[in-house]
Amino acid sequence: MKLTKLTLHTSLSPALLHLYNVSNSIVVIIDVLRATSTIATVLHNGAKCIIPVDSVAECIRIGKQIEGITAGERDGQVAEGLSYGNSPFEYPPEFVKGKTLVLTTTNGTKLLHMALDKGAKKIITGSFGNLTAVCNYLIEQKRDVILGCAAWKDRVNIEDTLFAGAVINRIKDHFEINCDGSQIAETMYLDAKDDLFEFLKNKDASHYHRLTNFGLEKDIRYCLTEDAANVLCVYEGGKLIVG
Amino acid sequence: MKLTKLTLHTSLSPALLHLYNVSNSIVVIIDVLRATSTIATVLHNGAKCIIPVDSVAECIRIGKQIEGITAGERDGQVAEGLSYGNSPFEYPPEFVKGKTLVLTTTNGTKLLHMALDKGAKKIITGSFGNLTAVCNYLIEQKRDVILGCAAWKDRVNIEDTLFAGAVINRIKDHFEINCDGSQIAETMYLDAKDDLFEFLKNKDASHYHRLTNFGLEKDIRYCLTEDAANVLCVYEGGKLIVG
Repeated sequence: MKLTKLTLHTSLSPALLHLYNVSNSIVVIIDVLRATSTIATVLHNGAKCIIPVDSVAECIRIGKQIEGITAGERDGQVAEGLSYGNSPFEYPPEFVKGKTLVLTTTNGTKLLHMALDKGAKKIITGSFGNLTAVCNYLIEQKRDVILGCAAWKDRVNIEDTLFAGAVINRIKDHFEINCDGSQIAETMYLDAKDDLFEFLKNKDASHYHRLTNFGLEKDIRYCLTEDAANVLCVYEGGKLIVG
Repeated sequence: MKLTKLTLHTSLSPALLHLYNVSNSIVVIIDVLRATSTIATVLHNGAKCIIPVDSVAECIRIGKQIEGITAGERDGQVAEGLSYGNSPFEYPPEFVKGKTLVLTTTNGTKLLHMALDKGAKKIITGSFGNLTAVCNYLIEQKRDVILGCAAWKDRVNIEDTLFAGAVINRIKDHFEINCDGSQIAETMYLDAKDDLFEFLKNKDASHYHRLTNFGLEKDIRYCLTEDAANVLCVYEGGKLIVG
């Protein structure tokens, strides 16, 4: 008997997520620069949990209520009214150990809430920092997978596409991949993998520019480093925790 | 004085078209397999014009009214009630010369009407068959450009992405390209250009499968041939004509 393989699809933008069967799948939220890289770092560095919220007002309200760290950005910079931004370097172990972070970002947390509204079976976050943890989990779970790129205000971006491609490149033998978005992602990754940073730079990636204009080249290099914060980040009961 | 360069953006799916400034741009409708390849062929072979419509019912109604050829497909096959399909090989010069075709397809004509509704300054159709005509026109016009991939029911596809990449590769020096979708398209094209057919086959492109299952490998090979029907196809007054 030939078993039907599990499926894997890649949604290159939140505006395409509705095309896939979210309610029956694990959804991986991908926002490489920088939300999901920061999430992995914060949890890896010992935070108790992260509460992702979709507005700055909500972030401030919940932050006060639970005495958590309010964090987030709009358009790549610290959002007004919040204490911290979206850089992984703001959250060393000595600062975040045992604490709760309330986080809102331009694209990543928005996509997470979309996946939630569409009834995703399970939501995890993915970044190069926790690539291996993500891949191991997806193989173990034996469920259909949707790799959800957070993109930039619904515009497809290179870095999230590259991470989707990295996951596909590692786990494709376990899934049926009848999805051109996934093929595009893996092709891009194969082109880029020898030096992800140089690739982004040479391809004139729009968010590479946005962040280097803010002096954040160091952030980009870190966010492209495989397994720098290799913990599984799972969304459960309104919180992101180590899975 | 440094002049501001014109912009070029690539919309990888109709579901992303609203993100771009359509009303001020030339929109290139791209549906390589097979609508826009067939459109170029039909006009190259001497048809008077093509009337693109968005439903089969409308196609039949107008076809009767003007005594035109009703043509079109749904899901890759001749649509019920229409006389001809969406294969370029159905339209040799001896059949179409001087005639009017009324055409409806799954993705291509739908996107054309979307661009029209959004007030595109000018709409042309693009395919490998008329690559040079398209590129020359875009350079001459000195307007902002949106390359609009018709995709497959809003899912990004490889072949339309490749054509967008081919155009970008030829005309990029004339435009400011701050658009990751365009960078992805060009990267894919550079990987694929030595043998587009083998690339589609090796990448397991979903529409490659759909069409080869119908025995249409010959169509695919033709639709990937550069300048096989090198005329400019312009939308004017409800009709596609040679520009």
